[in-house]
Amino acid sequence: MQMDNLAKQIAFIKEIDKVKYIQRRTKLFNSDRRENDAEHSWHLAMMTLILAEHSDKPIDVLKVLKMVLIHDIVEIDAGDTFIYDTAKNHSNTEEELMAAKRIFGLLPEEQAAEFIAVWKEFEDGETDEAKFARTMDRFEPLLQNVSNNGGTWAEFNVPYEKVYGKKKAIADGSSSIWKYAEGLINESVEKGILKK
Amino acid sequence: MQMDNLAKQIAFIKEIDKVKYIQRRTKLFNSDRRENDAEHSWHLAMMTLILAEHSDKPIDVLKVLKMVLIHDIVEIDAGDTFIYDTAKNHSNTEEELMAAKRIFGLLPEEQAAEFIAVWKEFEDGETDEAKFARTMDRFEPLLQNVSNNGGTWAEFNVPYEKVYGKKKAIADGSSSIWKYAEGLINESVEKGILKK
Repeated sequence: MQMDNLAKQIAFIKEIDKVKYIQRRTKLFNSDRRENDAEHSWHLAMMTLILAEHSDKPIDVLKVLKMVLIHDIVEIDAGDTFIYDTAKNHSNTEEELMAAKRIFGLLPEEQAAEFIAVWKEFEDGETDEAKFARTMDRFEPLLQNVSNNGGTWAEFNVPYEKVYGKKKAIADGSSSIWKYAEGLINESVEKGILKK
Repeated sequence: MQMDNLAKQIAFIKEIDKVKYIQRRTKLFNSDRRENDAEHSWHLAMMTLILAEHSDKPIDVLKVLKMVLIHDIVEIDAGDTFIYDTAKNHSNTEEELMAAKRIFGLLPEEQAAEFIAVWKEFEDGETDEAKFARTMDRFEPLLQNVSNNGGTWAEFNVPYEKVYGKKKAIADGSSSIWKYAEGLINESVEKGILKK
């Protein structure tokens, strides 16, 4: 039974190597190179470890780590959706659900069910853990864009209102991180790297 | 105090972006592209979540995750050391310790001390958590080399005895994973992608 589980788990471990090829729009800090989903997920996991104390609610850090580590695995099948893309629906699409079932379905049954549930919890964004994980997911590209003279905001002409609208979800997980983030957004307008 | 911590934490979060530029020798699965340390660390974190049940001893999964997520951060200053390089000392060099103190030292004092201690625990490899983290660190490139027709073993003419000597540390964390790994090593010899 244990060796049978191991074979399935290794099939999954090989499959998720593909996450390293999924390019995001956002670029690395002070860089022209786009970030891939594995690098992004690692950075969110590090941010979770470092910033957990700023969560407004007590959180299970291990649960948040699971969420941020796995949240983009569905993009192996469904592709990356740019947050400021207006044409595509962003949350919990049928395509992503099918991807979750296929990819996590490579794992032993109980483990597959657990990871699909964790992924859905992140997508639904209702629990304190999901809120904090989503705070991390919104905060990292904000830091990157600020370090890159506006980054994707400048590249794709995204106006202040749209950025503010997407980023204010940071406040759902942490009021202190949101205070900091709001300061960065305002400074970006003053510097002219984000247009009002 | 909380905002003061946050400024230090964000300086650290920006600094560790450099982990994404550190190239390993080992290549991605079925690929010619070398892996970077951030991708590697993400993959080890995923493997920890998936394979924890195979640890021979009960482990604190959150502690192991911290270890694998941070274990290569010192390479920002100290560089990557190839495991089969005979010229360089591999464990706990003075250079790596200075790197740990500088980089984790960007964090608030208590957090810096915690992360330096976790990194040292991983390097010392004595606790059950460190053993399992090191099992993950040895197992991933083995899977990659097997998927790449010998990978770095073939590229750098590493003989069976040396590979076996390095990889048997996998057994310190998990006898079932070692059984599987040993099978892969033997198959690699049979296929001629690892020379005896």
